[in-house]
Amino acid sequence: MPSVACSGSIAPPTRLRIVDVAVIGGTGAEGFGVAMRAAAAGHHVTIGSRDAGRGAETAAKAGERVGAALDGTDNATAAAGAGADGVVVVTVPYDGQAEIYRSIRGAVAPGAVVLDATSPLATAVGGRPWQVLRPWHGSAAEQAQAILGSGPRVVAGLHTIAAEALQALEQEVDTDVLLCADDANAKARIGSLIDEIPGMRWVDCGRLEMARVAEPLTALLVSINRTYKVRDAGFRIVGRDAWGASS
Amino acid sequence: MPSVACSGSIAPPTRLRIVDVAVIGGTGAEGFGVAMRAAAAGHHVTIGSRDAGRGAETAAKAGERVGAALDGTDNATAAAGAGADGVVVVTVPYDGQAEIYRSIRGAVAPGAVVLDATSPLATAVGGRPWQVLRPWHGSAAEQAQAILGSGPRVVAGLHTIAAEALQALEQEVDTDVLLCADDANAKARIGSLIDEIPGMRWVDCGRLEMARVAEPLTALLVSINRTYKVRDAGFRIVGRDAWGASS
Repeated sequence: MPSVACSGSIAPPTRLRIVDVAVIGGTGAEGFGVAMRAAAAGHHVTIGSRDAGRGAETAAKAGERVGAALDGTDNATAAAGAGADGVVVVTVPYDGQAEIYRSIRGAVAPGAVVLDATSPLATAVGGRPWQVLRPWHGSAAEQAQAILGSGPRVVAGLHTIAAEALQALEQEVDTDVLLCADDANAKARIGSLIDEIPGMRWVDCGRLEMARVAEPLTALLVSINRTYKVRDAGFRIVGRDAWGASS
Repeated sequence: MPSVACSGSIAPPTRLRIVDVAVIGGTGAEGFGVAMRAAAAGHHVTIGSRDAGRGAETAAKAGERVGAALDGTDNATAAAGAGADGVVVVTVPYDGQAEIYRSIRGAVAPGAVVLDATSPLATAVGGRPWQVLRPWHGSAAEQAQAILGSGPRVVAGLHTIAAEALQALEQEVDTDVLLCADDANAKARIGSLIDEIPGMRWVDCGRLEMARVAEPLTALLVSINRTYKVRDAGFRIVGRDAWGASS
């Protein structure tokens, strides 16, 4: 009965389901932004921190800004809470990345999707933020996968999004998210979460090893921001709207 | 007399001057596109090739497409012809890059601006075009500067422009050109040439060493094209229009 569909009722937004999102390093500027955006999109968000109390405090602060309830606890508890169906987002500086992954390794469920946002900036070793290191595994995301083992499915992304843009909830985020992963389903799941954030759009960049090219883009944006004395440089991939889904 | 400026006469397009542009590797797909675009913008273009006869043939072919006269000769003669005030564009595969630069080293005038478009794709060593090598000097452009010595001023750019897009003269080129160079004047000169090509826009990405991040973007675009089965992925930097000149 096609006429029923035209009766004037408003269709609810298409959403597959509410996802349990754990944001490891959620007390940092980038993680705080991600946590708020995910909560604003209707997901159940838990902010993880090295210190459970600080995690809870930050969750309360984020909840106040968003007008939704977030949980906060320590990193391992947050990671475990996401379960096998949830998403673990890791937004930590490169110098602490390996240690953080070792601390949550036993808590991340096999099959869980892990979004790693690390950029191997040279600030990790006292360098400048427009310089990058070459991680032993090729990229920070491959290092994450190596530490977690083959159970969790690592997706690399969010390298081109400024924390300020994520935190400015009243504004759309005018940039693309370049996603790299070996598991196509994991990549598409993160992609659908990305697409829920106003203005953001995901681009399938291929396998996880492409993070070797995507991660250093943070440094390029830092250099562009520095050159033009701005803070909001971002990337768009030309043509993306016309392509449909990746294959 | 401001009223004279409003008398209805049409101002000619602002152009500082006609530039002598030598395109080394101008018989390749990318170089051929660059040569045609530069000639279409009104510059005097010489196509260089390992073989002078092939250079001349390609120049004639380009001239027919553009409707303007181009010259063609061997690489060293083309490079020398650009002189100290001209621009030498080098569009060659990475596996031949060092040899080509050694062959033109004595011909490039001190002070000349050299635009290097090399991406260190792993195809140079039998790998795939979405894989990149790490050049000993950090980037292919830094290798070029090392071979040329301190006289010529190397600018890295054009890594994100598909040859097909350059050759499709009837269409605008919908992508940004990321330029990296130590010499700000050389960078701005290449930038003004870029801005003359319809649709193209240049972005100042900082020093020449930033080519370490910009050059691998070719591989990322190849991966994106492969993923979506398209050929026209490009980059735009968000916000660029609002920033004005770099400083």
